[in-house]
Amino acid sequence: MAMMIGEDEWLVCCGSSDFAKLMVKASPFSSLEAAIGTAREIWFNEVNVTAWLEAFAAHPQIGKSPSPSSINADFARRSEAEQSTAFATTTNSALQELSEWNVIYREKFGFIFIICASGRTHTEMLSELKGRYVNRPIVELEIAAKEQMKITELRIAKLFSDKAKGVSGTES
Amino acid sequence: MAMMIGEDEWLVCCGSSDFAKLMVKASPFSSLEAAIGTAREIWFNEVNVTAWLEAFAAHPQIGKSPSPSSINADFARRSEAEQSTAFATTTNSALQELSEWNVIYREKFGFIFIICASGRTHTEMLSELKGRYVNRPIVELEIAAKEQMKITELRIAKLFSDKAKGVSGTES
Repeated sequence: MAMMIGEDEWLVCCGSSDFAKLMVKASPFSSLEAAIGTAREIWFNEVNVTAWLEAFAAHPQIGKSPSPSSINADFARRSEAEQSTAFATTTNSALQELSEWNVIYREKFGFIFIICASGRTHTEMLSELKGRYVNRPIVELEIAAKEQMKITELRIAKLFSDKAKGVSGTES
Repeated sequence: MAMMIGEDEWLVCCGSSDFAKLMVKASPFSSLEAAIGTAREIWFNEVNVTAWLEAFAAHPQIGKSPSPSSINADFARRSEAEQSTAFATTTNSALQELSEWNVIYREKFGFIFIICASGRTHTEMLSELKGRYVNRPIVELEIAAKEQMKITELRIAKLFSDKAKGVSGTES
């Protein structure tokens, strides 16, 4: 039986409304692999730069907890879970430096630093941020889009696994 | 004697306010070549995607005359001059087809079709538009930025030549 996945659930995987609409349109999927393949095609080849910027803007800044105004509670919960390693091992000085570099990064590129945070410490991500800061804006835009896709894939896998277990989004 | 060029004059060359501000900051220039070299560096390596989108949005759609709400009269005059070959040789059917394809292009990419129009006919530009329409959005974004830079270079050359002749922007 094909899983029913709504636009709001795709939005938790990736905060672009065009992406979510196109995933609904392409549904249902016969497997997780099929869903991820379609998601990659939509993200890299179909939605445009405005959709990318919308998806980036849905994330909390690395080193900060999701704000109460996050697009929805499930999205915030995923962000928190992905940064759990980072917060479990962080220091005040790492958080302070991340906060400062996030401002500098955003000033240069016009969007927040996007990185797949799962399993990474704040110190590792800070080092990535500094390394990526020297990139040309168009190069960095594409790197950020690839990081967003890694996040999206992890979230789609979680969504499928929760659905298979009969867990609803709000309980996971 | 170094030429004095104001932010409003750089905005006629390229409608991104970040670009114009950085050109003023990098002034004065010893030659046209120096100014174009700096403009290229600023456009491709310093300003971000938001600045690119702002610059694209300043142009009238190819096949349309600049609207009265153009950022300024000099910008509109440059757009008209660059499309003079196109309008001198156009046909109603080319204009109609361009208008339809412009809508389709904008829907896919989120910004208007940008092309250096100087010396090109509407039929040639329509053919370019159709060829570029199949591109991935990130690829097309960079092509549009390169076309914008060609336009910017022509306009900087015109600006320097007018200044050398003592022609003010409003009289050219």
